[in-house]
Amino acid sequence: MIMEVERVGVVESGWVWLRAIPVNAGAAMVGFAEQARKIAADDPRKLIHSFKVGLALTLVSLFYYFQPLYTSFGVSAMWAVMTVVVVFEFSVGATLGKGVNRGLATLAAGALGLGAHHLATVTGKTCEPILIGLFVFLQAVAATFIRFFPRVKARYDYGVLIFILTFCLVSISGLRSDEIVGFAQKRFSTIVIGAAACVVVSIFVYPVWAGQDLHNLVAKNIDKLGTFLQAFGDECFTRPEAPETLVGLHAILDSKSSLETLANFARWEPGHGAFMYRHPWKQYLKIASLTRQCAYRVEPLNAYLNSQTQAPQDIQEIISRMSSESGKALKELAWTVETMTRPDSHESNLRIASKNLHSLIKSDFWEDQKDISVVIPVAAVASLLNDIVSCVEAIAAAIDELSSLANFKQPDKPPPLVSVVVDDGLKQESMSSSS
Amino acid sequence: MIMEVERVGVVESGWVWLRAIPVNAGAAMVGFAEQARKIAADDPRKLIHSFKVGLALTLVSLFYYFQPLYTSFGVSAMWAVMTVVVVFEFSVGATLGKGVNRGLATLAAGALGLGAHHLATVTGKTCEPILIGLFVFLQAVAATFIRFFPRVKARYDYGVLIFILTFCLVSISGLRSDEIVGFAQKRFSTIVIGAAACVVVSIFVYPVWAGQDLHNLVAKNIDKLGTFLQAFGDECFTRPEAPETLVGLHAILDSKSSLETLANFARWEPGHGAFMYRHPWKQYLKIASLTRQCAYRVEPLNAYLNSQTQAPQDIQEIISRMSSESGKALKELAWTVETMTRPDSHESNLRIASKNLHSLIKSDFWEDQKDISVVIPVAAVASLLNDIVSCVEAIAAAIDELSSLANFKQPDKPPPLVSVVVDDGLKQESMSSSS
Repeated sequence: MIMEVERVGVVESGWVWLRAIPVNAGAAMVGFAEQARKIAADDPRKLIHSFKVGLALTLVSLFYYFQPLYTSFGVSAMWAVMTVVVVFEFSVGATLGKGVNRGLATLAAGALGLGAHHLATVTGKTCEPILIGLFVFLQAVAATFIRFFPRVKARYDYGVLIFILTFCLVSISGLRSDEIVGFAQKRFSTIVIGAAACVVVSIFVYPVWAGQDLHNLVAKNIDKLGTFLQAFGDECFTRPEAPETLVGLHAILDSKSSLETLANFARWEPGHGAFMYRHPWKQYLKIASLTRQCAYRVEPLNAYLNSQTQAPQDIQEIISRMSSESGKALKELAWTVETMTRPDSHESNLRIASKNLHSLIKSDFWEDQKDISVVIPVAAVASLLNDIVSCVEAIAAAIDELSSLANFKQPDKPPPLVSVVVDDGLKQESMSSSS
Repeated sequence: MIMEVERVGVVESGWVWLRAIPVNAGAAMVGFAEQARKIAADDPRKLIHSFKVGLALTLVSLFYYFQPLYTSFGVSAMWAVMTVVVVFEFSVGATLGKGVNRGLATLAAGALGLGAHHLATVTGKTCEPILIGLFVFLQAVAATFIRFFPRVKARYDYGVLIFILTFCLVSISGLRSDEIVGFAQKRFSTIVIGAAACVVVSIFVYPVWAGQDLHNLVAKNIDKLGTFLQAFGDECFTRPEAPETLVGLHAILDSKSSLETLANFARWEPGHGAFMYRHPWKQYLKIASLTRQCAYRVEPLNAYLNSQTQAPQDIQEIISRMSSESGKALKELAWTVETMTRPDSHESNLRIASKNLHSLIKSDFWEDQKDISVVIPVAAVASLLNDIVSCVEAIAAAIDELSSLANFKQPDKPPPLVSVVVDDGLKQESMSSSS
C-alpha cells in the first residue's frame, strides 16, 4: 500500500517534471530571445558584424564550390574557409592584425620549414626523421616561449601560433611528398584570398574601427567621472539616496584591459575619419590611466553620498561648488577629446573653486565647529576633492599633450558647457542670491 | 669641393651606420636574452610549458611520420598537429576547456553539417548550392551572434568558432565527395588524438592548475593589501618617503580580468591537490572583488604617506595602530585562504583598534587642535581607515562563507601572526611604555 502510494508519488512527480519541460524550454527560449534582443539593442554593430561574417564566409565558399577553382586549389581551398572563420574579428584593427599575422607567419614559417626540410634530407635517410623531429621540437619550444614576451603577446601572439603550425606542417609533410613548394604556395595563396575577403568586408561594410572605439571610450569615461562629480556636488551632505551612477564608476575602474586591447588593435588600422595611421594611441592609454587614478579618488566619495551628515550651508556650498567645478572641467575635457578641438581655458572656474576650497581649509570654520560628526566627513571630502583637482589637472595636461600630438583643430565655437567666469565665484553668487 | 665634402660626409655616416649594425644587433640580442632570462626567472613554469608544447608536438608528429598511421589517417593527420598547436594552453583548465570545446563542437557541427547536406541534396541539383549557401550563411550569422553572449564568450567561445568552421567544411566538402562520413570520422578521431596528447602532457608533466593560481593570487592580493596597511601604519605622518609598495597595489586594482579568466579555466579542471572538481571558484571572485573595493579605499592613503604632516604622538599612535591592525587582519585572512584553514577569531584586535578610532573620532582632540594642517589629513585618514575596516569585515565574511563552502579544515595550530589580545589595546600599551 505504502509502496503504491510512493509509486504514485514518483509517477506524479515524473509527470510534473514532464509537463514542466515545454514550460521550462519556453522560458529558456524567451530568456534567450530577450538576451539576444538586449545585446543587439545595446550595440547594433554586433548584429551587423554577425551578418558580415556570414557574408564573407558565403563569398569564400564560392571558391570551394565552383569547379574550376576547386581543381586548382584542391583541399587547400578549405584553408580559405578556415582563414575567414578564424581571422574575421569585430574591429577592422583586430581583423587586419590577425590577417597580417597569419599571412606573414605562414610565409616566414613556410620558408624556414622548407630550409629545415632541405637540411634534413641532405644528411641522409637515417638522420632525416631525427633531425626533423629535433627542428620541430626546438622551434616549438622557442616560439612558445617567445609568446610570453609582453610585446609579442600584445601584437604578434597569433602570428607566432601560426608560425609553429605552418613550420610543423611544411617540414613534416615534406617527408611525404616532393610537392612541398607547390603545397606551401597553394596554402599561402588561399590564406591571402581568405584574409583579403575578411579585410575587404571588414573595411567596406559598416566598418568598426577599434581606434574610434578607444577614442570614444576614453572620452566617455572622463565624461562619466564628470557627471558623477556634478551629481555629487548637488547631493553631498543633503539627502541620503542610493547613487545611481556607481555602476558607471566601476566600469571606469575595470576598463584597463579592454582599453589596452583596443589600443593594440588600433595600431593596425589605416587612417580613418579624423585619425591618421600613426595616431598617438598610446597617449589615450596615458589619459585613461590618469582617469582611473582620478576614479580611485572619486570612488570613496560614494560613502558620503549616503551619509546623514548635514553640513552648514556655506561649507556645503564650497564643497558642492568644488565638486561641480571639477565635474564641469572633466566634462569639458571629455568634450575636447571627443570633438578633437584644442582645449580652451576651461580650468579657470576650477581654479577659483580650488582657491575657495583652500581658503576653507585654512578658515576658522574648524575652530568654531564643535560637532565632530560634521568635521570628519567634511575634512575627508575636502581632502579627497583636493586630490581630485590634482588628478583633473594631470588629465588636462595629458589631453593638452594629445592635442598637439594629434593636431587637434582650433575651436571655432565655444564648448557647450562654458560657464560665466566671475571674479570670486562663490561670494558673487551668494551676494546675487541674497540681493 | 663642397659636393665632395658632402659625399665624404654621406660615405662616413653610411660607414658609421654600417659599423653600428653588429653593435646594435648585439645590443638587441643581449636585451632579448636578458628579457628571456627575466621571464624564465620570474615564472619557471613558462619555460617548462614551452618544453611541454615541444614534447606534445613531437609526439603527435610521430602519427604523421610512421607509414601505417599515415595511410590510415591521410591528410587528416595534420588536424592532429593543428589541434596540439591550438589547444595546448598554459594551464590544465584552459587546455581541457579548449580540447572539450573543440571535440564537442566538431561532433555537433559535423552531425548538423551532415544533416544540412542531406536536406540540400534531397531538394535536387538546382536548389542544392543555394540551400547549402543559405545554411552556411544562417549558421555563421547565428553562431557569430551567440559568441557575444557573455556566458558563451566566457566558456564556449572557442567551441562556437570551431562549430562554424566544421559546419562549413562538412557541408561544403559534401558537395564534392561522398566520403563525407568517413571524412568527418577521420577528422574527429585525429582531433581526439591531438587533444588527448595535449591533455595528457598538460596534466602529467609539471601541471599548471588555473585553480591553484586563482587561489594563490586571491590570497596574495589580500596579503599585499595587508602589507601595505602595515607599512602605512609604521610610516604615516612620520617621514616623507616614496612608497615602494605602490606597484603591488596597482596590480590588485587591475587584476579583475586575469582573475575572471583564471576562474573560467578553473571550472574545467578536475579535482587537484586540495581542490575538488566543483570547488566554489565563484566565491574567490567575490572575495577578490571585495579586495579590490578595499584597495580603492587604501589607494588614496598613498597621498598621506608622502605628506609633511606631523601629527601629535597619541593621534598618530591610534591611526598607526588602526592601520597596522587592519593590515594584520588582512594578512591573517590571506593566511586563512592560503592554507585553507577555518578562520580564527582574528578580528578581535581589529575591533579594539576600531573602537579606539571611534573614540578618537568622538574625542575632544578636534576642539583642542588649532593647527588645521593637521586636522584635515588626520580626519581624512581616519575616515578612510573607518571605511577600510568595513571592507576588511566584508572580506572576512566572504572568506568565512568560502571556508564553509569549500570545507576548510579546522586549525591545528594557531596562525603565525596571532598577537596577544589585550583588553584595551592602545591604553595598555602606552601604559606599559610609560611605566
